[in-house]
Amino acid sequence: MKTLTILLKTSHYSSHSLFSSSPFSLLHCRFISSLPLSHPIYTIWAANTNLGKTLISSGIASSVLESPNSAQFHYMKPVQTGFPPDSDSRFVFNKVSDLFRRRRGEFSLVSSNYVANCSGSAAKEVCGRYEERKVGGELGIGEKRLICRTLYAWNEAVSPHLAVEKEGGGVEDEDLLKMVEKCLWMGVEDEKNGECWSLIETAGGVASPGPSGTLQCDLYRPFRIPAILVGDGRLGGISGTISAYETLKLRGYDVVAVVLEDRGLANDGSLLSYLQNGLPVLILPPVPQDPSDDLINWFDESHDVFTSLKQILLSAFSDRVKRLHDLKKKAEDILWWPFTQHQLVPKEKITVIDSRCGESFAVHKADSRDIITQQFDACASWWTQGPNSALQVELARDMGYAAARYGHVMFPENVYEPAMDCAELLLEGVGKGWASRIFYSDNGSTAIEVALKMAFRKFLHDHDTIVDIANETSKRSIEFRVLALKGSYHGDTLGAMEAQAPSSFTGFLQQPWYKGRGLFMDPPTVYMQRGKWNVFLPDEIVSEGQKQEVFEFRDELFSKSRDTTDVARIVHAAGGMHMVDPLFQRILVKECKTRNIPVIFDEVFTGFWRLGVESAADLLHCSPDIACYAKLLTGGILPLAVTLATEALKALLHGHSYSAHAMGCTAAAKSIKIYKDQKKNPNLTPEGRVLRELWDAKLVNEISMHPQIKRLIVMGTLFAVELQTQGSNAGYGSTFATSLLRQLRDDGIYMRPLGNVIYLMCGPCTSSTKCNQLLMKFYSRIDEFHKNTSQVQ
Amino acid sequence: MKTLTILLKTSHYSSHSLFSSSPFSLLHCRFISSLPLSHPIYTIWAANTNLGKTLISSGIASSVLESPNSAQFHYMKPVQTGFPPDSDSRFVFNKVSDLFRRRRGEFSLVSSNYVANCSGSAAKEVCGRYEERKVGGELGIGEKRLICRTLYAWNEAVSPHLAVEKEGGGVEDEDLLKMVEKCLWMGVEDEKNGECWSLIETAGGVASPGPSGTLQCDLYRPFRIPAILVGDGRLGGISGTISAYETLKLRGYDVVAVVLEDRGLANDGSLLSYLQNGLPVLILPPVPQDPSDDLINWFDESHDVFTSLKQILLSAFSDRVKRLHDLKKKAEDILWWPFTQHQLVPKEKITVIDSRCGESFAVHKADSRDIITQQFDACASWWTQGPNSALQVELARDMGYAAARYGHVMFPENVYEPAMDCAELLLEGVGKGWASRIFYSDNGSTAIEVALKMAFRKFLHDHDTIVDIANETSKRSIEFRVLALKGSYHGDTLGAMEAQAPSSFTGFLQQPWYKGRGLFMDPPTVYMQRGKWNVFLPDEIVSEGQKQEVFEFRDELFSKSRDTTDVARIVHAAGGMHMVDPLFQRILVKECKTRNIPVIFDEVFTGFWRLGVESAADLLHCSPDIACYAKLLTGGILPLAVTLATEALKALLHGHSYSAHAMGCTAAAKSIKIYKDQKKNPNLTPEGRVLRELWDAKLVNEISMHPQIKRLIVMGTLFAVELQTQGSNAGYGSTFATSLLRQLRDDGIYMRPLGNVIYLMCGPCTSSTKCNQLLMKFYSRIDEFHKNTSQVQ
Repeated sequence: MKTLTILLKTSHYSSHSLFSSSPFSLLHCRFISSLPLSHPIYTIWAANTNLGKTLISSGIASSVLESPNSAQFHYMKPVQTGFPPDSDSRFVFNKVSDLFRRRRGEFSLVSSNYVANCSGSAAKEVCGRYEERKVGGELGIGEKRLICRTLYAWNEAVSPHLAVEKEGGGVEDEDLLKMVEKCLWMGVEDEKNGECWSLIETAGGVASPGPSGTLQCDLYRPFRIPAILVGDGRLGGISGTISAYETLKLRGYDVVAVVLEDRGLANDGSLLSYLQNGLPVLILPPVPQDPSDDLINWFDESHDVFTSLKQILLSAFSDRVKRLHDLKKKAEDILWWPFTQHQLVPKEKITVIDSRCGESFAVHKADSRDIITQQFDACASWWTQGPNSALQVELARDMGYAAARYGHVMFPENVYEPAMDCAELLLEGVGKGWASRIFYSDNGSTAIEVALKMAFRKFLHDHDTIVDIANETSKRSIEFRVLALKGSYHGDTLGAMEAQAPSSFTGFLQQPWYKGRGLFMDPPTVYMQRGKWNVFLPDEIVSEGQKQEVFEFRDELFSKSRDTTDVARIVHAAGGMHMVDPLFQRILVKECKTRNIPVIFDEVFTGFWRLGVESAADLLHCSPDIACYAKLLTGGILPLAVTLATEALKALLHGHSYSAHAMGCTAAAKSIKIYKDQKKNPNLTPEGRVLRELWDAKLVNEISMHPQIKRLIVMGTLFAVELQTQGSNAGYGSTFATSLLRQLRDDGIYMRPLGNVIYLMCGPCTSSTKCNQLLMKFYSRIDEFHKNTSQVQ
Repeated sequence: MKTLTILLKTSHYSSHSLFSSSPFSLLHCRFISSLPLSHPIYTIWAANTNLGKTLISSGIASSVLESPNSAQFHYMKPVQTGFPPDSDSRFVFNKVSDLFRRRRGEFSLVSSNYVANCSGSAAKEVCGRYEERKVGGELGIGEKRLICRTLYAWNEAVSPHLAVEKEGGGVEDEDLLKMVEKCLWMGVEDEKNGECWSLIETAGGVASPGPSGTLQCDLYRPFRIPAILVGDGRLGGISGTISAYETLKLRGYDVVAVVLEDRGLANDGSLLSYLQNGLPVLILPPVPQDPSDDLINWFDESHDVFTSLKQILLSAFSDRVKRLHDLKKKAEDILWWPFTQHQLVPKEKITVIDSRCGESFAVHKADSRDIITQQFDACASWWTQGPNSALQVELARDMGYAAARYGHVMFPENVYEPAMDCAELLLEGVGKGWASRIFYSDNGSTAIEVALKMAFRKFLHDHDTIVDIANETSKRSIEFRVLALKGSYHGDTLGAMEAQAPSSFTGFLQQPWYKGRGLFMDPPTVYMQRGKWNVFLPDEIVSEGQKQEVFEFRDELFSKSRDTTDVARIVHAAGGMHMVDPLFQRILVKECKTRNIPVIFDEVFTGFWRLGVESAADLLHCSPDIACYAKLLTGGILPLAVTLATEALKALLHGHSYSAHAMGCTAAAKSIKIYKDQKKNPNLTPEGRVLRELWDAKLVNEISMHPQIKRLIVMGTLFAVELQTQGSNAGYGSTFATSLLRQLRDDGIYMRPLGNVIYLMCGPCTSSTKCNQLLMKFYSRIDEFHKNTSQVQ
């Protein structure tokens, strides 16, 4: 448990310790990442190199520091090449000081410049050097601060990734980001003294590589800091500026203003007409080309433009904060959430999600101060999520492409590449060996309705000796019922509901038309308890003298050797993460097949690596006649569902307007491919048919021993436990785990309970390191929770 | 009818007439646009100006003409500025001739260069000038041709849109495109003599404006010609190249190769790692900077790169053609279309859709020759479509942004901007004045299921004196039935089906669980016949002596003055485009309201300007308790549905994994705004509450007089007619109109019948000019069809 303590240490930074020790010292102790939202933070990007980012940074800093209520300006150049001759932070430091001295007398300005890390050849003299200047302040009214920092510098004037290749001094993306985050927090402490601003200047163009080779637009994406884009006023600059803008949008950034130097070509006109949405485009006077010019006159001429720019940035900042704050109240007023007792969700408990990057949400919190903080989406947003941040960027580009190429085109009697690509991948993947045709619909529930219609038809076809479909009386004498499992859930449309056993979800007040047209069985389930895998037999099945079966390893459960002999899914997800005994399922399938009863696998939850294999059928060693897929199908980006079948028999009079919509099929084709691409999914075993264990076996074992844990299941991307409770604190509606989950959210893990069952879920490509961080945090909080609740009792 | 004949004239071009008359002479006679797919056609784009597009064009031309089986190379520069000193077509003409003379002796090469249109100051000497050179051919084996063309040229070396401002000579996008198309067809005639290639060179960067100011990436989009991207090898060039690539992808282009000059920075490495999908990146040797260098040595050094590039282009071309050809067979094998009798759709009848641009499909046809041709999507892809080409581009960018910013994030207890924006716009729009809360689901069918659940609950709440919901017996004694209209359709999930009257869609073979839990009424309908609007009263309603009501103008039907007095929709779409009498609907709503019976408007089809108003409720002068929207909600790009309600009463245990998905909400928010933005939707009347008439009233009147037309309805974006038939040729399943629709598809109009009802449907922003072109073509074919079928009988 010792290592745990270290890993769980997480805190904000004190503002003065930053460079006192190695920047790496604190980095590895952190889990969550957050940014202050209490003051304006911007990133300045450019359409190309040498378009004047640093001049504009200086202008903004100068304009901010001029204003009476400002106190601090933090300028940061995370990555500098051509150093020391080129040092943007030093330029800002000098130029802003000079400008301040000339323009203002009332306040003094203390400026500093600091270079934190330099590669070998750049390092010698300047690394760690701290410069300070004090100017102005004749009237002694007060002191303002300009803090300029270069985080990493290389000597050669090339792209940072090349500089690293040549000079060394490489830095991992995560470490660079942590440094940036640290610096952004340093301003906050002094906010009480007045307005504080932070500005991050990127290197080169928007998609220029950073030190690790990651494009900067991708590198900085987790923060999603609002952007200032420096455009290009030259010939060709309209194109370059628009493309750079689109690259930022394709990463989910909000661009707040475009600024460009006037080169006499009126490029701003074309940019304004492109940016119809009213994004401001500001024009700076031509920059003198004479290297001896100190640019003071240019800054004077540009004064009003920078004042406007500052105002634009300031009001965009307040608008954003206001919008985030208003969302809770508005949500309470006009949204109607699914499966939610609105009176149990007071305004304070609503989560405002600003964005997602890979597996994590960026959540707005406004407790003691306004922050944007990361939370791992451990419920995988209702079990839909597949993408890590790299896949999300790829999917976003593909979504833009699919929308531009197709929008949506109608499906019946037509064919287009994404619908075909997706269908082929499904037949080569989850449908391999049994399925031959794909029916598209919109969600798991409709996929089930389609499957049921297909099954009814197939049954009638296979049993034409029993039912004379031409004969009304014969037809009406038939009552179709579905053999299904108790506790199962297949969706919320009436047809799908009919296939699930009566429960609180199917009550008269929810759907008076519900009858429950099934024979519902209580299946044996399996789970881990105190380190062993148990088979739990329901009363209906257990015969006298029969004992609970116990296995050492999970794999034994799936072994065909348990056969002397399925309608089902492996895990009852919504029903509380019950894992149905695979042996039972296999026998059931076999028995149905001998009787010509069509078998449907509802793989909406289990499909696409959710349980560590592409299709849960791989675990059962048997195949269905019909199977339904959704959720992870599109990589978790938008709704699409498919029903796979052995053969189309007749026209199916079922369809939705957006059947086989191009965007969904494109997302699905890409996701299915990436999940099983050895190069992109580090979790695939070399044979590629299964994911390696993502959850540390030793730790899982230890957790299963904990007295707070009643049962545990772990498989593929899923880790779930049922908490030990007393008395009435059981069932789906239980709020027993609420305080535990609240603490885990503060730790940066977004979980949702299913009653007393709580779970962690990742994507097929999530690193096992991340999974184990989650697990450790979880374990630690469970232990704490247990101690507290035991004390109370 | 005379004007019709002219407008309907449409044909391909003979190859020698192109420049013999004004290029405008033929342009206005055309309706459909198509491109040959029989030979490689590429567009060459660049990340910036001056990156060597013309050098690469010359290299490709040279490499193609070197190969023994090539016959012709068409090079086209649609837009040239800095002319005549800068003439890229002349450069290609000269350079390729020179290279050919040096390299090859067997064949002769006849090269030509022609400049079609020049603006004032550029025009004097060169406009219309035709130059020709013949080189090589010592062995006299045969003659090859290089045809170089400049379509429009301006004198000043600035962006084309500025040149137009200064010099005049403007050209509309459509006219420019038609010129390009014309030229692309000119090569085809001579194909029999060997391989033919076409290459279009753009001006400046990918998003540089064309002559009209439209960005070139948007301007050329209707053709969606595969792209070669010339990258930037300089510092900052990685970023510029990636951004340019993304701009092309965001317009739906397929980039086939990236080519760039080696500037010693190894930019290709970063590009390759970005383009993980295996797109080739080719490197050319540094181009000599000495202006006196004739570049012959450079071309020699580059020889192998151009050979590779040519091979890449050739195989990408064959792959594309093969893929398009294979799609039909594959579709027949593995897809299962909704609502389709597969045996009635033999392979030949399958439509291969290559893309969509605004309202039109690009369809692959392989009859006498392979072409990609445009078809207006007159069924609006199951009535979903809203975007014109400008809106599609905006939506595509927003889709990329939403996917990058959010992917999908789970909805319950959470809030995020797109879900809120969309909800607010709905309450200010279609829900204005009555709705107060939004429930999100995935499609029209689920929106209806949700609405029904809400209505049941509301009924129980409002009638708590009748039903004691705590009492099982009291509850079970209630049987909920829906008052609905015969012939109505509300979706294909069981719950939605139950609310529609029995029909062939609800039969035992389709859904044995269907009972039809409604009271189904036969409503009065309205339609135009022989120029007048008729109210048709069903037998149930008609009382003795009552006559058919007839009105001169449609507006009279909607007048509240018809009152001395709804569950309904205005138009029964799937049921055969029946327009239910608005008076009847208003009375029905009123009667239900007095009895506290919740009223649901199914506006899935009618919502969002489909009928010329944002909500059909505006036409009925009354509002519902609950209303459902989908289809046009997202601009026709991906599935999303909403159910609006007066107030959320209790937790609704209904939800789908992707409830309120960010991409759908983003698309919806954008579309709702654009539909009613005076600046973006030219069809809005100044008051902004209705669309102006899109279908020419005189022509509509004339069509209604035609003996082939039984009834007609026209309203908003919809024009529908029922064809006059004999005997058994009636009903949804009828194929009476098949030959008519086949001809209309050849004319470039994609229609789908509802039995004998055929319709034209456009988007809320489609120009009335386009609508009337459709209408005229339709009229002409109807007349022809009538004459033919009359002759047969």
